Amino acid sequence: MDKNEILKSIESLSKKKSAEMFLNDFLLTWDKSEDEIAATLQTAEILRGMRQDNISCRMFETGLAISIFRDQSTRTRFSFAGACNLLGLAIQELDEEKSQIAHGETIRETANMISFLAEVIGIRDDIYLGEGHTYMKEVARAVNQGHQEGVLPQRPTLVNLQCDIDHPTQTMSDALHLINYFGGVENLKGKKIAMTWAYSPSYGKPLSVPQGIIGLMTRFGMDVVLAHPEGYNLMSEVVGVAQKNSEQFGGSFAQAMSMEEAFKDADIVYPKSWAPYSVMEERTRLLQGGDRQALQEVEKRCLETNKKYIDWECTEKLMQITREGQALYMHCLPADISGVSCERGEVASSVFERYRVSQYRQAGYKPYIIAGMIFLSKFQNPAEKLAELVNKGQPRI
Amino acid sequence: MDKNEILKSIESLSKKKSAEMFLNDFLLTWDKSEDEIAATLQTAEILRGMRQDNISCRMFETGLAISIFRDQSTRTRFSFAGACNLLGLAIQELDEEKSQIAHGETIRETANMISFLAEVIGIRDDIYLGEGHTYMKEVARAVNQGHQEGVLPQRPTLVNLQCDIDHPTQTMSDALHLINYFGGVENLKGKKIAMTWAYSPSYGKPLSVPQGIIGLMTRFGMDVVLAHPEGYNLMSEVVGVAQKNSEQFGGSFAQAMSMEEAFKDADIVYPKSWAPYSVMEERTRLLQGGDRQALQEVEKRCLETNKKYIDWECTEKLMQITREGQALYMHCLPADISGVSCERGEVASSVFERYRVSQYRQAGYKPYIIAGMIFLSKFQNPAEKLAELVNKGQPRI
Amino acid sequence: MDKNEILKSIESLSKKKSAEMFLNDFLLTWDKSEDEIAATLQTAEILRGMRQDNISCRMFETGLAISIFRDQSTRTRFSFAGACNLLGLAIQELDEEKSQIAHGETIRETANMISFLAEVIGIRDDIYLGEGHTYMKEVARAVNQGHQEGVLPQRPTLVNLQCDIDHPTQTMSDALHLINYFGGVENLKGKKIAMTWAYSPSYGKPLSVPQGIIGLMTRFGMDVVLAHPEGYNLMSEVVGVAQKNSEQFGGSFAQAMSMEEAFKDADIVYPKSWAPYSVMEERTRLLQGGDRQALQEVEKRCLETNKKYIDWECTEKLMQITREGQALYMHCLPADISGVSCERGEVASSVFERYRVSQYRQAGYKPYIIAGMIFLSKFQNPAEKLAELVNKGQPRI
Repeated sequence: MDKNEILKSIESLSKKKSAEMFLNDFLLTWDKSEDEIAATLQTAEILRGMRQDNISCRMFETGLAISIFRDQSTRTRFSFAGACNLLGLAIQELDEEKSQIAHGETIRETANMISFLAEVIGIRDDIYLGEGHTYMKEVARAVNQGHQEGVLPQRPTLVNLQCDIDHPTQTMSDALHLINYFGGVENLKGKKIAMTWAYSPSYGKPLSVPQGIIGLMTRFGMDVVLAHPEGYNLMSEVVGVAQKNSEQFGGSFAQAMSMEEAFKDADIVYPKSWAPYSVMEERTRLLQGGDRQALQEVEKRCLETNKKYIDWECTEKLMQITREGQALYMHCLPADISGVSCERGEVASSVFERYRVSQYRQAGYKPYIIAGMIFLSKFQNPAEKLAELVNKGQPRI
Repeated sequence: MDKNEILKSIESLSKKKSAEMFLNDFLLTWDKSEDEIAATLQTAEILRGMRQDNISCRMFETGLAISIFRDQSTRTRFSFAGACNLLGLAIQELDEEKSQIAHGETIRETANMISFLAEVIGIRDDIYLGEGHTYMKEVARAVNQGHQEGVLPQRPTLVNLQCDIDHPTQTMSDALHLINYFGGVENLKGKKIAMTWAYSPSYGKPLSVPQGIIGLMTRFGMDVVLAHPEGYNLMSEVVGVAQKNSEQFGGSFAQAMSMEEAFKDADIVYPKSWAPYSVMEERTRLLQGGDRQALQEVEKRCLETNKKYIDWECTEKLMQITREGQALYMHCLPADISGVSCERGEVASSVFERYRVSQYRQAGYKPYIIAGMIFLSKFQNPAEKLAELVNKGQPRI
Repeated sequence: MDKNEILKSIESLSKKKSAEMFLNDFLLTWDKSEDEIAATLQTAEILRGMRQDNISCRMFETGLAISIFRDQSTRTRFSFAGACNLLGLAIQELDEEKSQIAHGETIRETANMISFLAEVIGIRDDIYLGEGHTYMKEVARAVNQGHQEGVLPQRPTLVNLQCDIDHPTQTMSDALHLINYFGGVENLKGKKIAMTWAYSPSYGKPLSVPQGIIGLMTRFGMDVVLAHPEGYNLMSEVVGVAQKNSEQFGGSFAQAMSMEEAFKDADIVYPKSWAPYSVMEERTRLLQGGDRQALQEVEKRCLETNKKYIDWECTEKLMQITREGQALYMHCLPADISGVSCERGEVASSVFERYRVSQYRQAGYKPYIIAGMIFLSKFQNPAEKLAELVNKGQPRI
């Protein structure tokens, strides 16, 4: 985008109703209105365009961005770091092991103590069902209360960097990738996307990506098909969200019993492993009981169960039954690639390699999506602020 | 504070003699003159006001702030990060485990090697009696020498983020809280503050907070009463400082044998656990001998001894005997709250909860106190520099 | 340097051919042309001068600098942090333990995933022969390909923060120290430098410093003598580079069998420990086999072998046989100092102490060398950009 295109896009952004995002959090995509989703995607593209044109997106002279990673992360960690830096915020990580968080210290207290100068708090907490989102809500409540009580001079925004329910920075990047791939959000209408389970020998992965995908893609009028082996079901609330969305937004949502069924004539396939639902539930019970030994055994059992479905692999043969054999393959990465990272995994190496650059681009939207989420929560009149930055035209380098 | 009030405060700051703080460290409050203490408190308030009015406090285009945490920290870590960021400095932590600090490498060498581009070094080293302050003095000597020898292009300032003797960033925040709570430093004169030991089941906590409190509050003409069980005495040098201060500044310093005696008619109570003095001494001996196993046993014994004084708890009943039953309850956090973080602890949950917001505000001064300490050590004419920033009025966001 | 001297130096910089450094990496000094080496040294001095004159060197409004430390580091870590901050970049460390780098995830993928907003990637990977440089080349290839494929909006520059072959940020700092010590690069011609092994009781150190020294110093027309006990030879490729350089640049390169022979009439001595070549080879084999236990045993054996050469120590007696007994003693630090950090080590404490300040200054060039390397890879017309910054004259503080 050149400067004029950016200014046009800002003009169109100014017509979207995103006022409720101001001083608010981004936890679940289905808590956001259509205009808010659209505004976030558009802001991400505007910021990406500005950076490409070497226009500084820095809008904070100073300010902290707090990150809390309760699970490992590379992609999201660096995307969050990049996004915050792009806007002028400095990262301060809360390493819960190095911190003096007293046994029994309330989340309310910790949340306030780290937020005196914080503009944003990014949290990943995705392993335990019923935990991550609950924790984020509690942190959000705490900083909101802290702001109202005059403890915090500003209300830091929470960004969900993956919880047990949703992974909005991932799925919004995925959506932006689809929009650019198909040449506009209007072209997503009627496209079939297969969100399917796939075999992995590595570990019992969270449910948040497939849940996030069916919860978001059903908003664009797409035909969303979910497929997984028995026992690998997703949270019923989220399946309900997908169902409701499909009715409201004019697409469809269906469940299939095999990859074949889901892949048939699909325009997009998203085959990805996750843990059996019963394993997810057991994990939470064991976590609450503090039984680390048993957690490892559950993990082992999970991988044993996975093995029964080793043929759930995205092969070239399967790809051939997609729409003209040309479906777009997607993955949130890292993928378990057969013959590369493991003997048998989620995807054949030739399929992965053919879509490698496409996937890397897909991942590359994440910093801008996160920056967009932060930006819209920080400025009451985001379009005006963006126009001001573009017109000022301070070079980034 | 609006812009005019800030400019008035800067005008009054310009009359305080703080020239010796330039290129100097902040290690112990009693090393600082009355004007220097007052200037630090006032600068903190000015910076807080500027940030509240969205005036950027950034005075460094580039520059590093080094942090060295030899003990766990959340509040102080984030306060230091926030303070440095507010002024435009980037944090670089010295993680002694990840660093190639050769066995036997001198403190002098490490201090110089990390300081080539450092404006400030913040250190927490609070567990071992006789260690923390000594270490900070040695680092200060090293960077001073390095600067004189032409090794370091600037003389980085040390900020004591808690040592074995004092915790100045905490107690100065406490003082600022008291000043704002009672409506001016002049109103502290004659107020009775009870610094008392309280029971904790968690671990043998440092002596630096109670020491810092009696060493600082005796400067404001307050009636300071220290109470603790036998064997929980503080360093005699610091008790001497409190005694001397009380004579010089017209308040009083007394010791009591019970919480009741100390709380009687108190305007402020600060009940907080710390380790028995003999345990603190033994710890240092064991550390020097490198005996990690014995250190754990000492810790256990410490908690056993604490149990004898389980009734040293700040209860509602005790609060009733304070001045009109309305004393201000203070804690440096995190507190051991009975029935919340432990069965029996330092404070009843109803007392803690009633003063919760007050305590959070108390903690919220710390970033500005630290920023004030750094600022005064970096500018020969701090009032002029602040006025320049306020008049420039660059928005922070 | 005052502003006029800086501008003159920039004028002379503009005549050096460094165009190929643009969007390129700095991995081995012998991959760089004479002009490129000279431009890097000169840019470092210009940036150092600018900072000394309080002229901001900030040229990035935003941007990330990634660091990957596969071995411990203090000096280089802080130098890299300082250099990046000086230019306006924020550090984001890739901690491979905290990252979700899937088993079998390709270096290509990780390199792209962390680089969406990265301007520079600094890597230390120095323990295993045949590994570090190979890894860096693979990362460089990955981000280059990523940039060409449109995945990365910019091509991040790699800076070798020490590999198995070379340690260019160290040796370039060493060279700058020599140039300033002897009053100009032209004065290095004909100077004799003794790069010798020395005894260490600590651990089997990498070969990259001695290799880097003989590979770089032979470019300045110096007489370079390498000495080590039998079995402590360096990589033959690098010895070949030194040999070739000495022929091309009019100095000499020779090997000696003892410290005495090497020190005789030397103008500069650089006595430093490293591991036996066979140990370095065995380490790599064991690493590839994943045998951590055996690695520790090799380490023990290495130190046993070292003991045979305990008399390879830089003593006062040895210093006396250098040119007029006045050779410049150098070390990359930390040194094993006899009677200070160990019973017997690389250097007598009186020798070390006499040259302590000199060594600290030597180390102090590193942040500027790194900043120079980054700078030259980021601007097509570096002299123009520097002149612009100097003329703008934005104060750093």
